[in-house]
Amino acid sequence: MDFTVRAATKEDCKDIWRMITELAVYEKMADQVKISPEDLERDGFGQNPLFECLVVEVPEEQKSTDGFIVVGYALYFYTYSTWTGVCVHLEDLYVMPHFRGNGIGKSLLSKVAQIAKQKQCARLQLCALEWNTPSRDFYAYKGAQDLTATEGWHMLRFDGHTLDSLAQEDAKG
Amino acid sequence: MDFTVRAATKEDCKDIWRMITELAVYEKMADQVKISPEDLERDGFGQNPLFECLVVEVPEEQKSTDGFIVVGYALYFYTYSTWTGVCVHLEDLYVMPHFRGNGIGKSLLSKVAQIAKQKQCARLQLCALEWNTPSRDFYAYKGAQDLTATEGWHMLRFDGHTLDSLAQEDAKG
Repeated sequence: MDFTVRAATKEDCKDIWRMITELAVYEKMADQVKISPEDLERDGFGQNPLFECLVVEVPEEQKSTDGFIVVGYALYFYTYSTWTGVCVHLEDLYVMPHFRGNGIGKSLLSKVAQIAKQKQCARLQLCALEWNTPSRDFYAYKGAQDLTATEGWHMLRFDGHTLDSLAQEDAKG
Repeated sequence: MDFTVRAATKEDCKDIWRMITELAVYEKMADQVKISPEDLERDGFGQNPLFECLVVEVPEEQKSTDGFIVVGYALYFYTYSTWTGVCVHLEDLYVMPHFRGNGIGKSLLSKVAQIAKQKQCARLQLCALEWNTPSRDFYAYKGAQDLTATEGWHMLRFDGHTLDSLAQEDAKG
């Protein structure tokens, strides 16, 4: 199957948003998607972009049954480790089901790794759900360490009212 | 105990680096610290800062036995969720042992939460080690959800030669 991986533009935000929603449905968390295509345009393609994104395009004659030619994406941004400096965090990597098994996911991941190396990042990190075995197997096969399993790292989150109350606590100084 | 929480400046980088190292020793991973005070100056206080940092200062008469008046820090940066948009990630929160139990950690955490709210972030996230019960209890008491426990999120990492080989794979497109 022919495909091209390229940097996303503002015009891709509707497609990226559509696939963000598909991925959230797969992850059984569709109700958590609160952003819109317009948010993506503003946040990723304005003055100070908060993320970067690659998309995968197939030729018109191979378009999806719904008529889409943008069939995958990898959305990432830069983070900072106080041990190793700048890192890449891969927030989402997604390929539409019909287009899987053609090396598209591998190609996206490899391109993100190339960008990480270009930017002198010592690490490429991502998160995966425990029950998502196909995904975890894919990353493990590519050489990823599972830091939750090997070092015991847990992800913690404040949001909603717990974030509000934290912010409202009397802060000294 | 009197203390002040303020935004870090370039001049604080030696102190921040000293405490990064102390924290890594506590986390039993001191050999993983590869950065220098100069890296922090460049990465946090240049044209496009990769992180922001708060520091805690005590009055001269309460300085540490080693003569330090900067006795804690919180280092954070902005990330992006394709579900909720911009987020704050708290990379490190540290208070020197002698100065604990005075509300300094709570004050730092609250200030970071205030910054998150100012920047319209829906989430404040961080990572904690499984065996680090004092730390996990502190965050749980403040209302943090443990997403690894409740939703099964695992942290994965490519680095060293696994990152190199990923980047070297033939990428199509």
